[in-house]
Amino acid sequence: MRWMVILGLLLGTAVCSGEEAVPTARTVASVMAGSSDSDWRDLDPKRTLVMQLESNQVVIELAPDFAPNNVANILTLVRDGYFDGLFVIRSQDNYVAQWGDPAEGEHARSLGKAKVKVMAELERDIDDLQFTRLGGDDVYAPEVGFAGGFPVGRDLVSGRVWLAHCYGAVGVGRDNEPDSGNGSSLYAVTGHAPRHLDRNITVVGRVVAGMEHLTTLPRGSGELGFYVEGEDMAEVEWIKVAADLKPKDRPKVQVLRTDTATFMSLIEARRVRMEDWFLHPVGQLELCSMPIPTRTRP
Amino acid sequence: MRWMVILGLLLGTAVCSGEEAVPTARTVASVMAGSSDSDWRDLDPKRTLVMQLESNQVVIELAPDFAPNNVANILTLVRDGYFDGLFVIRSQDNYVAQWGDPAEGEHARSLGKAKVKVMAELERDIDDLQFTRLGGDDVYAPEVGFAGGFPVGRDLVSGRVWLAHCYGAVGVGRDNEPDSGNGSSLYAVTGHAPRHLDRNITVVGRVVAGMEHLTTLPRGSGELGFYVEGEDMAEVEWIKVAADLKPKDRPKVQVLRTDTATFMSLIEARRVRMEDWFLHPVGQLELCSMPIPTRTRP
Repeated sequence: MRWMVILGLLLGTAVCSGEEAVPTARTVASVMAGSSDSDWRDLDPKRTLVMQLESNQVVIELAPDFAPNNVANILTLVRDGYFDGLFVIRSQDNYVAQWGDPAEGEHARSLGKAKVKVMAELERDIDDLQFTRLGGDDVYAPEVGFAGGFPVGRDLVSGRVWLAHCYGAVGVGRDNEPDSGNGSSLYAVTGHAPRHLDRNITVVGRVVAGMEHLTTLPRGSGELGFYVEGEDMAEVEWIKVAADLKPKDRPKVQVLRTDTATFMSLIEARRVRMEDWFLHPVGQLELCSMPIPTRTRP
Repeated sequence: MRWMVILGLLLGTAVCSGEEAVPTARTVASVMAGSSDSDWRDLDPKRTLVMQLESNQVVIELAPDFAPNNVANILTLVRDGYFDGLFVIRSQDNYVAQWGDPAEGEHARSLGKAKVKVMAELERDIDDLQFTRLGGDDVYAPEVGFAGGFPVGRDLVSGRVWLAHCYGAVGVGRDNEPDSGNGSSLYAVTGHAPRHLDRNITVVGRVVAGMEHLTTLPRGSGELGFYVEGEDMAEVEWIKVAADLKPKDRPKVQVLRTDTATFMSLIEARRVRMEDWFLHPVGQLELCSMPIPTRTRP
């Protein structure tokens, strides 16, 4: 009962009917069960990539609001068929999987109409970007939450907001120079969130389905998890923009909107754990421990 | 240069020789290159488990200082051959892999001399336990750092310290009751640190080698990632206490001591990134983003 009182204070949502106090703290399951169709959104096919990775599909939602130039270059590469028949070239345990061209120099595949150098896009102005606050502290950012369906950090002093490297974040590999990336080599975070990469490398989106097909790839034995000669690399059979697929072939995944009361309730349900299993209800929640639910379109 | 000044302030370690200021901020690589043999420790074979998982080995360092009764029960089970021929029964993406007996009820394997109920051991008194502070904030604990080679949270007000659920943490599966676990079903964290489990479930140690063999297992398609009928489960051929193996068959892994100046330098090198690749040096470090290096015994 002591926790119920604390919960009421924490949530500030206990409803007094005059006769009884109704605690409104809820479990994750009860919040999800109460979601309505309007809480869910379809992916925008124009900024959704489908990667055919051997017999599996990985679906990536791009974030042109945060990295317009890098996303545009990636779309050019994809529509040019640049990635088709390339490979996952790196799988480093508890870090990233990276795909691109294993060949270098004169043997490397042409980038076609795409640019060779695209300046890193590390943060953007807050402007009027919708923001759902997570609340509580964060180790890396003054404030964290969700914008447009992506986990973000932001700084009201600088007026800037940026995409966070949570599990599934997709970014643009680069060398030391900030304009040395172009999207021809992309990585996805397959382990504990490497938040030290935030604002050091361009995040262009996140995997919304099929993440396990990248995480379970055998690790490369070379430095940084790159595969070495003789190790099998998973083939990227093709990457296509969902809009370029027939409607029936597009991913049927829907994502829970992060600008809804349902998502805000879900945040509280994950922060203060009411499930019987929990011996203490925690009371804190870290950005990358707040998954954004997906479902198959009903 | 501006960053060098800030670094000096942050680290408080700039050395003035009278003639010149020598910045002492270092890269991860330079700290590691400067480690000496005394910075490394062998595993104690009496509290090290070796799991033969099909053709791979997973090495687990147990933490009897934190969970003496659970560790003792696990050692009893292991020495009884309880795990030999059992399976990884669960692989949930970005969460845990769990191994134990897929059979239940009357078909379940006997626990032999081991206890059926062991009370959860969620935290312990700080006492004189050596502690290396990470520094900076944490979302879940008043203070975080390392004790005895394990990442921990602690609270000077309550005088308590506990093992943190970082990648590779090994814990004791339980039902709702706090004494419903006994070590016959163990899990390892294979994804982003589920720190909300800290002090809710008993951590008994962590994987120090072979973690990738658990993380790359195909995901189970059942609820919570449990495998369902017809799905291949990886076989736990055997688990043995390293002390019960011939010396030549024991793991040759060494772990960097966390109570050394080298490890403290490594913390600072990971907090403030001096590598040329970084566009900004970060300046923060989260507990589970601070790996504890291992090497093969020279």
